[in-house]
Amino acid sequence: MDAITRRQLGRMTMGLGAAAWSTVAPARAATPPVDSARLMARLDALRQFGGTAAGGTHRVGYSDEDVASRALVTTWMRDAGLTTTTDAAGNLIGRREGTTPGLRPIVFGSHTDSVPDGGNYDGPVGVVAAIEVAHVLREAKAAVRHPLEVAVWANEEGGLFGSRAVSGQFTAAELGARTHSGRTVAEGIRALGGDPERLSEVRRAPGSVAAYLELHIEQGGVLEAAGLDIGVVEGIVGIHQWDVTITGFANHAGTTPMDRRQDAMLAAARFIDAVHRIVTTTPGRQVGTVGRLTALPGAPNVIPGKVTCSLELRDLDTAVIARLFEQLRAETARIADATRTTFSFADLHVNEPAPSDARVRTVIDTAARALGLSTRVMPSGAGHDAQAMARLGPMGMIFIPSVGGISHSPKEFSRPEDIADGAAVLLASVQSIDGWA
Amino acid sequence: MDAITRRQLGRMTMGLGAAAWSTVAPARAATPPVDSARLMARLDALRQFGGTAAGGTHRVGYSDEDVASRALVTTWMRDAGLTTTTDAAGNLIGRREGTTPGLRPIVFGSHTDSVPDGGNYDGPVGVVAAIEVAHVLREAKAAVRHPLEVAVWANEEGGLFGSRAVSGQFTAAELGARTHSGRTVAEGIRALGGDPERLSEVRRAPGSVAAYLELHIEQGGVLEAAGLDIGVVEGIVGIHQWDVTITGFANHAGTTPMDRRQDAMLAAARFIDAVHRIVTTTPGRQVGTVGRLTALPGAPNVIPGKVTCSLELRDLDTAVIARLFEQLRAETARIADATRTTFSFADLHVNEPAPSDARVRTVIDTAARALGLSTRVMPSGAGHDAQAMARLGPMGMIFIPSVGGISHSPKEFSRPEDIADGAAVLLASVQSIDGWA
Repeated sequence: MDAITRRQLGRMTMGLGAAAWSTVAPARAATPPVDSARLMARLDALRQFGGTAAGGTHRVGYSDEDVASRALVTTWMRDAGLTTTTDAAGNLIGRREGTTPGLRPIVFGSHTDSVPDGGNYDGPVGVVAAIEVAHVLREAKAAVRHPLEVAVWANEEGGLFGSRAVSGQFTAAELGARTHSGRTVAEGIRALGGDPERLSEVRRAPGSVAAYLELHIEQGGVLEAAGLDIGVVEGIVGIHQWDVTITGFANHAGTTPMDRRQDAMLAAARFIDAVHRIVTTTPGRQVGTVGRLTALPGAPNVIPGKVTCSLELRDLDTAVIARLFEQLRAETARIADATRTTFSFADLHVNEPAPSDARVRTVIDTAARALGLSTRVMPSGAGHDAQAMARLGPMGMIFIPSVGGISHSPKEFSRPEDIADGAAVLLASVQSIDGWA
Repeated sequence: MDAITRRQLGRMTMGLGAAAWSTVAPARAATPPVDSARLMARLDALRQFGGTAAGGTHRVGYSDEDVASRALVTTWMRDAGLTTTTDAAGNLIGRREGTTPGLRPIVFGSHTDSVPDGGNYDGPVGVVAAIEVAHVLREAKAAVRHPLEVAVWANEEGGLFGSRAVSGQFTAAELGARTHSGRTVAEGIRALGGDPERLSEVRRAPGSVAAYLELHIEQGGVLEAAGLDIGVVEGIVGIHQWDVTITGFANHAGTTPMDRRQDAMLAAARFIDAVHRIVTTTPGRQVGTVGRLTALPGAPNVIPGKVTCSLELRDLDTAVIARLFEQLRAETARIADATRTTFSFADLHVNEPAPSDARVRTVIDTAARALGLSTRVMPSGAGHDAQAMARLGPMGMIFIPSVGGISHSPKEFSRPEDIADGAAVLLASVQSIDGWA
């Protein structure tokens, strides 16, 4: 039986005992169905807050649109039977207690803020699905042993500020940083109803969470290209970003012969090509990007004397990142010699890789297959709140396909049926984990 | 006898009959000496208007500093026996009549405006030397047959606006353009005392000028590197500038595998390297530069979907520029294929090459050698007012060394003795040309 037929049949049987299609039975009761129409209506409703004429969303973390959207999300949480609070970091948490005293909470959620001029799916899909899970469980009057917490993390796109406060990775030095909203981090936390002076109170201890789950769009084109339904995230890649400064000598583009130039732009060009060559000729799934570049003085008739650019390397293994960077440094020395320029590198941002939990991966994969969905274990090339939460307990992420692999763009799109499938996998996974001791 | 000894002896005999050191005698009377101290004092005095803490000058065309400096230059012109007027284009002209009625004027001069945060020599050297020539001739009570006109052209750095008005190349469409001064061209012309509605009156007919001469710093390092005193300009290179637009697809730098990218930055990098390779592997003295580049959206974690950059090619021969561009276009097609991007080119600016006059070159070379100075015939890689004036009569330019080849920078520097030598060559050349029918 091919995957499509399995999937179609699986969907037909959702809530009716889908375990027939799996060799592993769901841990507990049959999974009730999720409400696809409600999911889509809520995704659309969020566009009241920062929806753009281009069809996307501009709702950067801590902005007025971000603040305003929380009120609506809060009503959804209450409808789902959750008790809502905003913690000191500005995270919106909806909680219901479990039936067995003393168990640690199962936490699941995502974020509702967007990148500037972003799309409608990166973040909100995971939030509306998490609330849907709570809603369905309430409607089904399902007994749940663990406390459940649905989290809407604060300012994910700006740098995982909310989830890092909870995991203890947030530093006070970050409070003064200016964000895309125009507000500093401290001002933004206050705007969301948090209190930057009480941040230490939101910190949770490692081991204090039974599990953390997050449904998210893939943001790449791997699932769609392979015709697969669900990505089981094996881990979130590490990210190392550098500020690269290339110094040559600015001079007149008409009077300076080619052999007397110290052209920082030429050196930058060879560097960018070297990044691509080294990253693509080394076996593995690492990626390398130069996304930002400024050339000074920046006139058509002046040889650039200084170029600053970014370098970003990502991989699941920090050792791979380190080896790639060393290869690049060696190549850079040759480029500097040939162009009579100098290169310097400064750390801009470092995120350690965050592996997911093997047992949670098995739960997700099993739940998906039980629902008739095809799966692939894959890395997450993007950062997520899940990487912070992985410090507190077993973490797992569920990916659904992004059409065309497009993200951080108004053209970002995931199909309604994939969103419903993802929510169903999240629901089944929560139920399965609820069976853990 | 080596060049240094010839030069030292030549300088010792300046004004005393330097012809002994040349096989070609000066056309007329012995050349009186120029006053090096006065030249340097005036260069320094100009720094009252826009001199910067960095040791350079910020006196962009049409700015308040530019306007204010004209009053001081006017007093120098009057001291030199010149009658001053500001024409409708804002050019400051100092004129003395000749002794022979009906002869066309010998025009010489340069500009006093600078690039933003520029140096103290590019332009002003030619202006103070031109006034010095008139001053010396007046003090020496030398009979001069032709009318002499010393020109301070308006807004050279902004685009030769003053001299192009005189040569008839200025178009009314340019009047609305915003300049570095903050003023439009029309506003700037008025600020200098001109009248943009009477621009047509300043236009002169081809053949209406006996000759045009301009002393200027080389702005490159050729003369200094070769240990030479004077450059005899064989022509001003043509300049062709393009706006280059490279279109790829912006996407997430973490989730988009290397083989699925359409990275406009990578395409731009290969383009920049190709410009350098093609320009340097083709025999000739052409230069090619990418001086400006903008990558969008410009974030470290986003693959650039669009890059715009400049391309500039310069050569004395437009056919060489055209051939280089065709080679580049062919290479660009290969880069576009490999990176799945597209390139488009739009003309940004085109300046035709302006050859100097062979007879004027001989005059300059002869005068320099007679003064004991070593010379080289060389192109001007930079644009100058002389290229506009070449349309009206025989044109010649005199270059003096730029230390380190640095220009358009506060570090721009020419030695006082080279400035005095250049002024002496200008004086001797004017006297020689005055002997023409």
